[in-house]
Amino acid sequence: MKIDVYALPSNVQEKELKERVAVVIDVLRASSTIITALHNGCREVIPLIDIEEAINLSKNYERGAFLLGGERNAQKIEGFDLSNSPYEYTRDVVEGRTVLMTTTNGTRAIRKASEAKEVIIGGFLNVGAVAQYIGQRDEDVAFICAGTEGKFSLDDILAVGAMIDALQNMGKPLEMDDLGLVCLQMYSTHKQNLRKVLERTYHYRNLVRAGFESDVDYCIQLNLLPTIPVYREGVIRVLETA
Amino acid sequence: MKIDVYALPSNVQEKELKERVAVVIDVLRASSTIITALHNGCREVIPLIDIEEAINLSKNYERGAFLLGGERNAQKIEGFDLSNSPYEYTRDVVEGRTVLMTTTNGTRAIRKASEAKEVIIGGFLNVGAVAQYIGQRDEDVAFICAGTEGKFSLDDILAVGAMIDALQNMGKPLEMDDLGLVCLQMYSTHKQNLRKVLERTYHYRNLVRAGFESDVDYCIQLNLLPTIPVYREGVIRVLETA
Repeated sequence: MKIDVYALPSNVQEKELKERVAVVIDVLRASSTIITALHNGCREVIPLIDIEEAINLSKNYERGAFLLGGERNAQKIEGFDLSNSPYEYTRDVVEGRTVLMTTTNGTRAIRKASEAKEVIIGGFLNVGAVAQYIGQRDEDVAFICAGTEGKFSLDDILAVGAMIDALQNMGKPLEMDDLGLVCLQMYSTHKQNLRKVLERTYHYRNLVRAGFESDVDYCIQLNLLPTIPVYREGVIRVLETA
Repeated sequence: MKIDVYALPSNVQEKELKERVAVVIDVLRASSTIITALHNGCREVIPLIDIEEAINLSKNYERGAFLLGGERNAQKIEGFDLSNSPYEYTRDVVEGRTVLMTTTNGTRAIRKASEAKEVIIGGFLNVGAVAQYIGQRDEDVAFICAGTEGKFSLDDILAVGAMIDALQNMGKPLEMDDLGLVCLQMYSTHKQNLRKVLERTYHYRNLVRAGFESDVDYCIQLNLLPTIPVYREGVIRVLETA
């Protein structure tokens, strides 16, 4: 199994995705929020680039059938129902509803992945489920990290490392690119205390400074949820595995 | 001192360079070849993007005053005097001459850095000299890695790690971005045997397969040369330090 890792959506060469399963990762917080929302019965999440696009699309839905969610500069968008905090996407709020979602990094990364033969969403929360699914498919994989404000973001890299580590523990022979080696090494070195190394990173510190420490603590939990979001034709739903 | 690292020239946001010293790194092999050529008395290296650009420019020089150097697909370019192997840039060949050079990754990275207030060229060969120079200037630094064929390349990342390690050993208080942390960690873990980890990487294996193993062994030597190439107004010369 070939594994390639892209630290940023802009580094992806789309033609390389055609024969691959893509795993999109934006640990803090879009991936984690989408996994949580779908786990809590949300019907679907529609990732959108622009605020305007989200608002326009919402006009197609009946009142009560949809929620507007997302962030700009880590804060809730004016007029939106939900921010990008996974804690807001509880069962009583999201069950049976469509979430129209726009975030700074994550939704862009998902759209960028759309040339792949399958696009799933991963984070620390569903590492085990994602690794098991990829391992069973046994096809080449592209991990696409969202990054933070156009820069390499260690939280995403460590989550990719956790998935590669899980694949390796399943006995899969892996052929990794250079960044794959780095992900695995960084995760192996820090897995006993992810929080300690994350405390030195830009995105983590930014979110803590903005008052989102409990979100961050939530997002870096390993294997909390078995849910795998899958993105098909513009919509993210729960992947139904056999 | 703030340290930012870019794994690829395309990741650089040029406005971020304005107040910084940029260190361009293409360990295999452009950086190492340029350092070696200048150390051996080469008058100047002019980095060019296209083969045609290099050939056209060469018409401005008298016969014997210039050499055409570089590679495509790691091989010497037809009609050129020199390939991208540092072993060809000996004193008897390059002394007093201008080298017009075009390589796949390195020369592009150098040009991309040109918005910085100073642009120097680094590799394993001159780690100590570069770290000392940066440390003395005590300004914010941007490390710009060339990457390999548009992808993250661990050889460059380890060389950045070696420079950050040297700065840290000089007692400099460093404020690193996420990729800076990764560079330092990867270098610290592998510094006793760089070759062993590099043997697993794409660019290293590609060059060995193409018959350039001795080049690679040369390029990963730490602190072999005290020479710092500096790029100013389109031309790379030896930096004259006080």
